[in-house]
Amino acid sequence: MPSNAVSITQDLIRCPSVTPVEGGALATLEKLLGDAGFAVSRVTFRDEDTPDVENLFATIGSGKPHFVFAGHTDVVPAGAASDWSQGPFDGNIKDGVLYGRGAVDMKGGVAAFAAAALDFVEEFSAGFGGTISFLITGDEEGPAVNGTVKLLEWAAGQGHTFDACIVGEPTNPEKLGDAIKVGRRGSLSGIVTVSGIQGHAAYPHLADNPIPGLTRLLAALDVLELDLGNERFQPSNLEIVNLDVGNSAFNVIPARAEARFNIRFNDEWSLESLKSKILETLQAVNLGDLELDVAFKRDASESFLTKDDKLIETLGSAVKAETGRSPELSTGGGTSDARFIKNYCPVVEFGLVGQTMHKVDECVSIEDLDRLATIYKRFLVSYFAKDSGAR
Amino acid sequence: MPSNAVSITQDLIRCPSVTPVEGGALATLEKLLGDAGFAVSRVTFRDEDTPDVENLFATIGSGKPHFVFAGHTDVVPAGAASDWSQGPFDGNIKDGVLYGRGAVDMKGGVAAFAAAALDFVEEFSAGFGGTISFLITGDEEGPAVNGTVKLLEWAAGQGHTFDACIVGEPTNPEKLGDAIKVGRRGSLSGIVTVSGIQGHAAYPHLADNPIPGLTRLLAALDVLELDLGNERFQPSNLEIVNLDVGNSAFNVIPARAEARFNIRFNDEWSLESLKSKILETLQAVNLGDLELDVAFKRDASESFLTKDDKLIETLGSAVKAETGRSPELSTGGGTSDARFIKNYCPVVEFGLVGQTMHKVDECVSIEDLDRLATIYKRFLVSYFAKDSGAR
Ligand SMILES: [Zn+2]
Ligand SMILES: [Zn+2]
Repeated sequence: MPSNAVSITQDLIRCPSVTPVEGGALATLEKLLGDAGFAVSRVTFRDEDTPDVENLFATIGSGKPHFVFAGHTDVVPAGAASDWSQGPFDGNIKDGVLYGRGAVDMKGGVAAFAAAALDFVEEFSAGFGGTISFLITGDEEGPAVNGTVKLLEWAAGQGHTFDACIVGEPTNPEKLGDAIKVGRRGSLSGIVTVSGIQGHAAYPHLADNPIPGLTRLLAALDVLELDLGNERFQPSNLEIVNLDVGNSAFNVIPARAEARFNIRFNDEWSLESLKSKILETLQAVNLGDLELDVAFKRDASESFLTKDDKLIETLGSAVKAETGRSPELSTGGGTSDARFIKNYCPVVEFGLVGQTMHKVDECVSIEDLDRLATIYKRFLVSYFAKDSGAR
Repeated sequence: MPSNAVSITQDLIRCPSVTPVEGGALATLEKLLGDAGFAVSRVTFRDEDTPDVENLFATIGSGKPHFVFAGHTDVVPAGAASDWSQGPFDGNIKDGVLYGRGAVDMKGGVAAFAAAALDFVEEFSAGFGGTISFLITGDEEGPAVNGTVKLLEWAAGQGHTFDACIVGEPTNPEKLGDAIKVGRRGSLSGIVTVSGIQGHAAYPHLADNPIPGLTRLLAALDVLELDLGNERFQPSNLEIVNLDVGNSAFNVIPARAEARFNIRFNDEWSLESLKSKILETLQAVNLGDLELDVAFKRDASESFLTKDDKLIETLGSAVKAETGRSPELSTGGGTSDARFIKNYCPVVEFGLVGQTMHKVDECVSIEDLDRLATIYKRFLVSYFAKDSGAR
């Protein structure tokens, strides 16, 4: 069993790497992996509108298959430290539980894979017939502009091609072994704006209030059933997440009203077909003289489903061997950096139990940390043992 | 014809009395009326939450009938002076038109009545068998807390009881003589809040989005027909004037959504019956586990209809004699301080043409100013001449 998943997690938690700050977390990994023989690159990406972000790529071995582990060392803010029972950046262990921001999302996952990889590389020091890389970003919890997307491009520019990827995000709802994520729903956001004519509430005939029109549009979206889901995906779902008019005066009829929506959609839809459906639904509503404008946000993502049976089965077997449980193959939940990686190679996600992520007293049992490291190690052994020539 | 309505209007416009600032406007009236023999009181009202406001009460004569003219010298802000063709506080006359903030709303109206009253008092210097008062506030365009309401209370405390009132607000939509206002619709505002459970847009089953519930409430208000109006009043009307959720993140389902509404209602309703109707309508909507809260604003007003035929006929005859037109007896439009005065005596409203009020290049023809002064003078002569013993 890789024995240092816990201590690496503690080391990483003690680096206050609140996004987008590096906080020493990547330096810790650089030292650890470099000492074990990995070639480590620290890469900083810049952009006009967002903060500079540091990232790390580390690789060992040569040739095919090329397996890459993806993760992030940035964390969301801890809030008031006084709300925590243990300091959020202290890495304390109490009653077998390790506390700290990033314990499960996802310094614990990164540490477990690092422990597994170090163990594996040491065991197969004569060579394991392939390449293992780390793709670690500091921009997963931030705007995701200067992180995984650019690091993947950078790695491709260095000549790396990947054959399979595991993202170590916390995928298990309740217990280690609950679920492997084999795909994700897509996400589409947009703004619906209705424009009318401003006026005084006492003279409505001189105005054209956009709010009743917006209400009718929202009612049409509310009854819209996109699909019923399918065997791999839950039904697509639309949520209205904001309403805004910006009028503080009770005696004024406003000129403009807007609603913002977010859709999580399955593989029954593409972004294009979904946009058409939304536009068609909205345009079918009678708005009289009111003007309708629909703007879709650019940072949309397609749904995806990973169909690499070997990757899924190898990981599933490793999970079952360690936990005795057959993980569900899930596509639920939010988006992750897997949506970018899937353009380069088959990608699945498996990590710790997510219950405390982004919350006060984020924590992980040290038993889970060690077992996750064992699962990753089992996966590496199987992955590089079998059929390696075929990849 | 009272000859100085134009010059008094100019004097008042040159006082930059943007609400709640006195700006010299009340001082101008104090001097003018004081010199003519009026007993003038300047009264300042204070309140914790709103600015101090100066007001003026002036009275001449004695006994019954006691006629009171009500108006305001505060004005709404001028906006950028560079948008005006004439300086908003210069009082320039160009091509027979006097420009300036307050020209029609309602320094022109105050000046026309002052000119009429001075003329009348001089003509009947031996006594006119009654009392004439001015009730002038500096808080009509502001929160209306330290103005007419408190000035009426103060006057009552001084022993004044009124028999009739004209408010000099601009009541004519297009031409002098269009309309006398003989009542006003009531006004009721409120806030509808729906509370649910916040969550992540990717996990809607863990959240309870209040927006679809609010949409159903708004749809119910949209189809609500309060009444069809009657011979004196137009139909009651409800406008949704604002929507607010305050959520900037597309991936967050909000906990709370609110809508604000304003109702202008006729004498088919009281505030109490209308509130019951709104509550009943909203509570009939199925909101599941969402929580509904309805808060009515305190500054609501009942509708009213003035039934003093002598007041209405005396004013109507004066209008007709000067303009040749029979004014419509209207109850349309917004609220005015008449809603407070009607608790003390019969009140009607007649003033200038309102088209430019609250706009850039607010203006009044000097012909209209002189004619309004003549109408007020004719009214005073008739009012104090006939049936004075009966009042
Ligand atoms: Zn994460
Ligand atoms: Zn006014």
